[in-house]
Amino acid sequence: MAVTVDIDRVTCPLPIADYPHVLLGHGSGGKLTAELIQRVFLPAWENDTVAALEDQAICDWSAPVVGVKGHQGLRLAFTTDSFVVRPLFFPGGDIGKLAVHGTINDLAVGGAIPQYLSAAFILEEGLPMADLRRIVESMRQACDEAHVELVTGDTKVVDRGKGDGVFITTSGIGLVPGERRLSIHSAQPGDRVLISGTIGDHGVAIMSVREGIEFETTLASDTAPLSGLTEAMLACCPAIRCMRDPTRGGVASTLNELAAGSGVGVRLNESAIPIRDEVRAACELLGLDPLYVANEGKLVAVVPRADADKLLQAMHAHPLGRNAADVGEVVADHVGLVVLNTLVGGQRVVAMLSGEQLPRIC
Amino acid sequence: MAVTVDIDRVTCPLPIADYPHVLLGHGSGGKLTAELIQRVFLPAWENDTVAALEDQAICDWSAPVVGVKGHQGLRLAFTTDSFVVRPLFFPGGDIGKLAVHGTINDLAVGGAIPQYLSAAFILEEGLPMADLRRIVESMRQACDEAHVELVTGDTKVVDRGKGDGVFITTSGIGLVPGERRLSIHSAQPGDRVLISGTIGDHGVAIMSVREGIEFETTLASDTAPLSGLTEAMLACCPAIRCMRDPTRGGVASTLNELAAGSGVGVRLNESAIPIRDEVRAACELLGLDPLYVANEGKLVAVVPRADADKLLQAMHAHPLGRNAADVGEVVADHVGLVVLNTLVGGQRVVAMLSGEQLPRIC
Repeated sequence: MAVTVDIDRVTCPLPIADYPHVLLGHGSGGKLTAELIQRVFLPAWENDTVAALEDQAICDWSAPVVGVKGHQGLRLAFTTDSFVVRPLFFPGGDIGKLAVHGTINDLAVGGAIPQYLSAAFILEEGLPMADLRRIVESMRQACDEAHVELVTGDTKVVDRGKGDGVFITTSGIGLVPGERRLSIHSAQPGDRVLISGTIGDHGVAIMSVREGIEFETTLASDTAPLSGLTEAMLACCPAIRCMRDPTRGGVASTLNELAAGSGVGVRLNESAIPIRDEVRAACELLGLDPLYVANEGKLVAVVPRADADKLLQAMHAHPLGRNAADVGEVVADHVGLVVLNTLVGGQRVVAMLSGEQLPRIC
Repeated sequence: MAVTVDIDRVTCPLPIADYPHVLLGHGSGGKLTAELIQRVFLPAWENDTVAALEDQAICDWSAPVVGVKGHQGLRLAFTTDSFVVRPLFFPGGDIGKLAVHGTINDLAVGGAIPQYLSAAFILEEGLPMADLRRIVESMRQACDEAHVELVTGDTKVVDRGKGDGVFITTSGIGLVPGERRLSIHSAQPGDRVLISGTIGDHGVAIMSVREGIEFETTLASDTAPLSGLTEAMLACCPAIRCMRDPTRGGVASTLNELAAGSGVGVRLNESAIPIRDEVRAACELLGLDPLYVANEGKLVAVVPRADADKLLQAMHAHPLGRNAADVGEVVADHVGLVVLNTLVGGQRVVAMLSGEQLPRIC
């Protein structure tokens, strides 16, 4: 059955109107962020690595460097992320833990083995020193757990009212074993789409704190380092096409990027998508679609059909993949579109996030 | 002649009082920043690389990584810096140019050859898009000029009143040729202290804009990428002990770090220190000591006495070292102290910057 939508309207990340000012939505991870990247950043940095639009740069050293040996052929992954989440502390984590996990995960989903992190702090004058200590201690624990080393940092302080407590920017370096070539451009019709666990936990945990919503059980962020899971997955199935951690913009935006990047369609089965009851209930209460809600310890993987069952078993065997599920497939139809087979038997297009539904979620 | 001061008071970076809140001075690059690092950050990250307190981490890969070849023995430099300068645009540069140069320079003074940069933007809602475009274009130019590649980035947006236009965090990766071992711990009595050019230009350029001071000639920031100069210097004189770019906290704070790090004294000759007349005049007007004012395109080098003249000649031959000068020596006396032979024939101790005289200078 054909889905009749204006594909150009849905997939084109460039609305005609130019924005004279930065909007909150430009940080959403959705359509407006894509537009900002396409219109402002990419024209300035036209190199193959940036243009690949992955969450991490894979630097292939091929040119000789005087006096340096051994780097040629080495494949280094490099990534950076700023964290501006509010509140600073939330069930299941804090801004520091998030900053460490987020950068580890951007390396891991690129097939890299995380090695070194940096952390740059922008503190607002008046931040309680106890809060900073708590955040730093949390980052240390997160580094230790993931076996990465924080090796360099920076601190700046801005005057009261010109920041918001603390912003943290982490960057990370990882090593990519030579044979790995994961790419958002490599999905093929017939591939299966797997999700490593329940979706929406992080975003809803943050929102429930902000909105003061209480549930019988505590909703906690899923923030976690995915490098152990990705290594287990790649050991089991080196043919994984690509992995992504669906943070800002959620699973919907990630799969839209995949559909556009690989020139394919994606078909999701709503009934297969793992969602906690509390998350579903909170989303209904708040008017959110869980497909757009941020995750901080989950990944989406695209894998050849023949490997899907084996990979799913490997994921189930890992603590962070216990609830992994096969949620859909890559199709040759409706190129650039993600279409959901709904619970009630209908179909709907799941577009990229427009505007901003959950500002400052990470 | 002995200088009688309470050395413990001057060199100890830890005042007894604990601060319950973050102060502007904690971002000064002086004593309070050192205290924050010593008391809050170092206890959490006790590893040799962080504890070296260099402006860049040199990651020596020795452990094997499964599936990766060639990294063992490779020496990678890694650094990060956040930039929160006000105003965003100033004579001689802007926040973008500063962010690119600052990270290149932190790599270069460690003896690394800069390779790759990342840039993470924290934008305030309402920032004029034209300003962002101008900043991004300026960063591109700065990368091109220095032959580094910006390969990855991130954008977050915070609500109006929770940021200040734009903050930029750049991180950088460089390669360190195997034989180079520059370290702030390696200065030895008898070594000479060289400065690559006039001091205080950046800080005074920023302050003159903020305070609306005008001079007959335009005072411009000295922001510049130092990697060309450092390579020329190291080619001429591989025995350079250490180099530093004296940014926040100025030459005074850099030399205090050196004195403490190497367990030596430093003796400076005021008459030898190159300062522009306009900078000197502005400092008098504003009540600033140029030794504490930030530079963004200058470096301090410590070099064995036998190599000093040769190195100075090599510096003079480079556009960014035309005004280089031999400004003092490393001594065995007054360990941990920087002492200035003043123009009028006296001596005074140049302590580390206390408090914050020029907030948000970079």
